[in-house]
Amino acid sequence: MKIQTQIPVTLYRANGFIGRYQKLVRETVIPYQHNVLWDKAPDTEKSHVAANFINAGKALRGEDAGDGFYGMVFQDSDAAKWLEAVAYALAVHPDDTLERQADELIDLIAEAQDEDGYLNTYFTVKDRDKRWTNLLEGHELYCSGHMIEAACAYFEATGKRKLLDVAIRNAECIYDRFVTKRIEGCPGHPEIELALMKLYRVTENVHFLELSKRFIDERGVDPSFYAKEAEKRNWTVWGCDPWDNDYRQSSKPVREQTNATGHAVRAAYLYTGMADLASETDDAELMAACRRLWDNVVHKKMYITGGIGSTVIGEAFTVDYDLPPDTAYSETCAAIGLIFFGSRMLESEIKAEYGDVMELAFYNTVLAGMQLDGKKFFYVNPLEVNPGISGVACTHRHDLPVRPKWYACACCPPNVARLIGSIGTYAFGENKDTAYCHLFAAGSVSFANGMALECVTDYPYDMTVRYRVSGKGRLAVRIPGWSKRYSVFVNGSAYERTPENGYVYMDIDGSSEITFVFDGTPLFVRATNKVPRLAGMTALRRGPLVYCFEGVDNGKVSELRIDRSVMPEVSGYDETILGGIVKLTAKAVRVSDCDELYSDEPEQYVSCEAVAVPYYAWGNRGENEMRVWMNICG
Amino acid sequence: MKIQTQIPVTLYRANGFIGRYQKLVRETVIPYQHNVLWDKAPDTEKSHVAANFINAGKALRGEDAGDGFYGMVFQDSDAAKWLEAVAYALAVHPDDTLERQADELIDLIAEAQDEDGYLNTYFTVKDRDKRWTNLLEGHELYCSGHMIEAACAYFEATGKRKLLDVAIRNAECIYDRFVTKRIEGCPGHPEIELALMKLYRVTENVHFLELSKRFIDERGVDPSFYAKEAEKRNWTVWGCDPWDNDYRQSSKPVREQTNATGHAVRAAYLYTGMADLASETDDAELMAACRRLWDNVVHKKMYITGGIGSTVIGEAFTVDYDLPPDTAYSETCAAIGLIFFGSRMLESEIKAEYGDVMELAFYNTVLAGMQLDGKKFFYVNPLEVNPGISGVACTHRHDLPVRPKWYACACCPPNVARLIGSIGTYAFGENKDTAYCHLFAAGSVSFANGMALECVTDYPYDMTVRYRVSGKGRLAVRIPGWSKRYSVFVNGSAYERTPENGYVYMDIDGSSEITFVFDGTPLFVRATNKVPRLAGMTALRRGPLVYCFEGVDNGKVSELRIDRSVMPEVSGYDETILGGIVKLTAKAVRVSDCDELYSDEPEQYVSCEAVAVPYYAWGNRGENEMRVWMNICG
Repeated sequence: MKIQTQIPVTLYRANGFIGRYQKLVRETVIPYQHNVLWDKAPDTEKSHVAANFINAGKALRGEDAGDGFYGMVFQDSDAAKWLEAVAYALAVHPDDTLERQADELIDLIAEAQDEDGYLNTYFTVKDRDKRWTNLLEGHELYCSGHMIEAACAYFEATGKRKLLDVAIRNAECIYDRFVTKRIEGCPGHPEIELALMKLYRVTENVHFLELSKRFIDERGVDPSFYAKEAEKRNWTVWGCDPWDNDYRQSSKPVREQTNATGHAVRAAYLYTGMADLASETDDAELMAACRRLWDNVVHKKMYITGGIGSTVIGEAFTVDYDLPPDTAYSETCAAIGLIFFGSRMLESEIKAEYGDVMELAFYNTVLAGMQLDGKKFFYVNPLEVNPGISGVACTHRHDLPVRPKWYACACCPPNVARLIGSIGTYAFGENKDTAYCHLFAAGSVSFANGMALECVTDYPYDMTVRYRVSGKGRLAVRIPGWSKRYSVFVNGSAYERTPENGYVYMDIDGSSEITFVFDGTPLFVRATNKVPRLAGMTALRRGPLVYCFEGVDNGKVSELRIDRSVMPEVSGYDETILGGIVKLTAKAVRVSDCDELYSDEPEQYVSCEAVAVPYYAWGNRGENEMRVWMNICG
Repeated sequence: MKIQTQIPVTLYRANGFIGRYQKLVRETVIPYQHNVLWDKAPDTEKSHVAANFINAGKALRGEDAGDGFYGMVFQDSDAAKWLEAVAYALAVHPDDTLERQADELIDLIAEAQDEDGYLNTYFTVKDRDKRWTNLLEGHELYCSGHMIEAACAYFEATGKRKLLDVAIRNAECIYDRFVTKRIEGCPGHPEIELALMKLYRVTENVHFLELSKRFIDERGVDPSFYAKEAEKRNWTVWGCDPWDNDYRQSSKPVREQTNATGHAVRAAYLYTGMADLASETDDAELMAACRRLWDNVVHKKMYITGGIGSTVIGEAFTVDYDLPPDTAYSETCAAIGLIFFGSRMLESEIKAEYGDVMELAFYNTVLAGMQLDGKKFFYVNPLEVNPGISGVACTHRHDLPVRPKWYACACCPPNVARLIGSIGTYAFGENKDTAYCHLFAAGSVSFANGMALECVTDYPYDMTVRYRVSGKGRLAVRIPGWSKRYSVFVNGSAYERTPENGYVYMDIDGSSEITFVFDGTPLFVRATNKVPRLAGMTALRRGPLVYCFEGVDNGKVSELRIDRSVMPEVSGYDETILGGIVKLTAKAVRVSDCDELYSDEPEQYVSCEAVAVPYYAWGNRGENEMRVWMNICG
C-alpha cells in the first residue's frame, strides 16, 4: 500500500544551505552545462549533444546529416538531464532566458523524433536499421527514460506539453514493441522503469505502468536473452559480454534477487523502479525483494559516505564487506540512484533508515561530486587519496585527486544538477492527512492536504531545526539515526513521544512552532570487523556530515593516529572557509618516519592536532592527500 | 670488473632445510611435473608439452602433425624449466630413470628443431611463415632462452652435449638474424639475455655474448618497433598493445632507465641479463643503470616478503610505495627473477643487501609458491587473504586463498623446482682467492680455488651457522642486515673484524671451525609512512623469515591488534607442525565486533595471544584468513 508520495518540486522553496546549492546550480552549473551541450564551453571535452539532435532531425527529413553523431551511445541523456535540471530551476525561479534555451532544445528534440515515436540520435543518425538490435549496449531505453523524466519535470514546472507529448509518443512506441507486439527484451541499462512510473502519474495512462511492470517482471527471466540478441547482430558498441548478467542485474528474475551485483548505477535505478512499482501496485513479493536488496546494499556494500560501488571494473559492486577506501568507485550517479531508491522505499514504509541513507549519500557523496564553485566534477569519489598513487597507478587511475572539468562520459554533472534542484521532493512527502519531513531542508513547503510549513535551520551545521507549521493534520519528522539524544518542543513546551520506526508524529491543528534539537556531538565511527580494509581505523562524523582529513590542513595525513579518547573540538561556523563549514579538531599523534622501506626502529610519536573538514568539501584546495578512515592510537 | 662468479651447481651438496626441499623437488615435484608434461597427471590442466614437440617433429618431417599445438605460446618453456630442474637434481643425485626421461624429452626437442636451428613448437606446428613476425607476443626468444639455460645445466650436470648442441644451433640461428643480418627487434619478454650469458660461459663462443649485448643495447632505442612490427602482420596472440612499452621495459634505452616498470618477471629477467653483461664486460654505465633499478625495486617497490609486482593488471609494478597486501600480485616467478638479479649484482659488487634480498625472496615468496607437500602451487602470493573476498571479488580474483594444482599458464611451478635445485649457486660464490657465503645453506661445498667447507646449521630456524673450512684463501661471509648483533668465533675464539659492505672477511690457511651466531630475536617491522596502505601496521620477522597470522591459529585475524611493547615468545622447533617450524606468539588484544556495518559504539578489548607461523607455510591447512601486516595497539 502506498503510504506517501513525494511532494511536487514546485511546492518547496529552499533557502539556507540547500538554497545556496540550488542557486549555484541555477547560476553556474546550468549555464555552464548549456554551453557544454552546444560546444561553447572553453577547454572542455566536446559534447555535441545539441548537434546530434540537429543532425538527427536533418537525417529524418532526408537532408545531409552534417557532421553526424558524436559522443557516447547515451549522449542524448545529457540533454534530458539538463532539461530536467532546468525544469526544477524554473519551477521555483522563473527565468525567461533559461526557458527559451530549454524550449529551443526541446524543439530540436521534437524534430529528431521519428514518425513512429522512436527517439534516439545515435541510431537515427548512424543507422536506423540497427534500432532495437542491441539492448545490451545501445542505451535506447535508458535515453528514453531520461527524456521521459525531463518531460514530466518540464511539464510540471512550466505547463508546456511539447516535450511531454514527445515523451508520450516515444513511450507508446516502446509500449507497442514490448507490450502490444510482445517482443522479447529488457533494458541493458535500467532507468526507464522509474521514468515510466513518473509518466504514468503525470498522464494517468495505464500503458506506462504496464510497460514499467513488463520490463521489471521480464528482467532476468531468460538470462540468455542478451547472448541470443548478440548472435543476431554483427556489431557492438564496446564488446560487452552478453553473458555477464550480474553486471546488469539480469541473472535471475528480480523477485528472486537477494544480492546487489554489477554496475551500481544500473542496480540503484532498477531497484528504484521496482520499489516504485511495488508501492503503486501493492506488490508484497516485489517489495520483499526490494527490502532484501536495500539491506544488502546498505548494510554490506555501502561506504560510510553513502557511496556505492567498490570497483572501477564495471563501475560495480564487488562482494559483501569489500569497501576499499583508496580504490573506491563510489560514483556520484550511484549515490544519486541510492537516494532515488530510498525515496521510493519510503512510499511503502516510513522508516528513518531510508532518510538516514538518503541524507548520507546527499551531504557526502553527491555534494562531493561537485567543486564548491560548481565548475568541476568528480565522477568517482574515493575515501582516500594519496598523491603519486591516486590517479596514477593503473589500479587507482579512476581515483582522481582533483575534479576535472567535464568528462567525455558526462553522466554525473547533470545528474547532480537535477538532484539538487529536486531535493525538496526527497526531503518532504505527504498523504491525505500527514506531512512528512524526511530530510531537514530550510525553506517553505506547502502540501496538497492544506498543511504548510516553514523550516528554519542552519542544518547540516546547526542541529536545531524549527518548523512553523499551519493547517490540520499530522506532522511526521524523522529522527536521524546518528542523533543519540534529541529534544522536541511544541510552542516552547517539551514534547515527548516514542518515535515509530524513527519518526516522531504529532497532530497539528492551526499554527504551531515545533523545534527539534538534535545531537551535534562529533562521533568516532568504526566499521564492523567483517570489513578487512577498515580494521583499526576510525572515521569522524557530525550530524549527517562525514569528515575527512586533508594534507593542506595536516601535512602528511597517513602519519597521523587519531586519539578517540578525547572528544574532538567543534569550531564555530566559519563562512570564510570552503564556502562555510564547521571544522572538527581531533587529538592525535604524529608518527616519525623511517629512512628505509621497512624498518624495525621504534617509532617516535609527537602529540598534535588533526583538523577535519566535511568530506563534501575535499579537493577544493589543490592536489592533496585525503583520508576519511584514519588509523587510531591508544 | 667481475669480482666473483656463482659456483657450479655440482659443487654444493645440500642437507638440512635446503636439503629437505631439494629432496622434495627430486622425489615429488619433478616426477609430478614429468607426468604433467606428458599429460599423465590426473585432475590437472592439460599441458601437451611433450606432444607439442612430437607434433613439431612430425611437421618438420612432412608428416601429419597429429593433434597439433596446444597451450600457451610459451608452452615449450615448461619442458626447458623441467629439464633444468632435472639437471640440477642429477648433478648431485644420479638417477638413471630420471636421466632416461630427460634424454627422451631431449630427443623429441632435437627432432623439433628446424634445419636452420629454429626451435619453437608453436610456430613450427601452426605456421612456419609467421616465425619472427611477432616478437611482441610470440615468446620465441623467451623459449629459446629457457632452452639454452636447460642445455647449459644439463651439460654441466651430465656431460651430455645433445641439448647443448641444439641450444647452440638455435642461438646461432638467432645470432644470424639479429647480429649478422642486423634485423631489428628485441624480445617482447626478456630472458634470453641472461641465458646467452650462461651459454657464452659454457661454450666460450663470443657470439653469445655479442647477441646478449645486442638485445640489451637495442632495447628501447626505437619505442615504435613493436607498433611497426604489429602493422606488418594480420594476427595477434592476445591483442597486446604494442605501444605499451613500459610493460616490457622498452620505453627508452636500458642505460637511461631509472624506474622499474611493467611486468615484474620481464623486468627482473632483463635486469639480471643487464647486470650479468655489465660485470662480464666491465660496463660501468650499464652497471649504474642496474644499481638505479635495483634501488628502485628494493627500496620502493618490494613487498616485505621479497615479492614484487603490486598489481594483476599486467602482472606488474605500479608506482613507488604502492604495496597493497590483499591485492598483491607478487608472482613466484618474479621473486625468483629478483634472486637472479641480486646474484648477478654480486658479480660486480659484494654487498650484504643483495644477499638480504635474495634470502628474503627465497625463504618467503619462493617457498610460499609451493605447498609443503610439493603438489600444489601459488602463482600469486598475497600478503593478506580474506575468505569471501580473496579469490572472489573481481579485484581479488587472482589472490587465491589456497594453492591450486597446476595452471594452464604453468610458469611458476617448474621455476620453483629449478631455483631450489640450484640454490647452491646463489648461496656460494668464488673467485681466485675467496670463497663467498652469500646465503646460509647447510651442506658441503668445494670451490675451484681448492677451498672447501662444510656448513652445519639448522637455519633458518637456528641462527648459529658453523663452517668447517679447509684450504688456503679468504672466506667472506655475509652478515644479514636483520641481525642486530652477531658473534664470530674462529676455532672457539672470538673474532672481531669490521665488516666491509656487510661481509666479514677472514684468511684461511688449513682447517678451521668458524661459527657465526646471529640474532634470532623476533623483530616487529613497520613500513615507511610513504606506503599509505601500511600505516598503523606491523609485520613480524625472525631471521630471514617473515611471519604471518592465520585464522586456523587465531580465529578472526583482522580482529587482532598486536602489542609491540612485549617481545613475542619464540617456541622451540616443532617438527610436527607445517613440516617443522618455530612459532612466534605475540601479545595482542581482540576487538569486539559491532552489529552494524558502521557504529559509534565503543569497542571492547580482550587480551589474547596471536600466533604467527612462517609466511612460506601459509595456506597449508585449508582455506583460511591470513595477514602479514597486522594492526597494532598501544
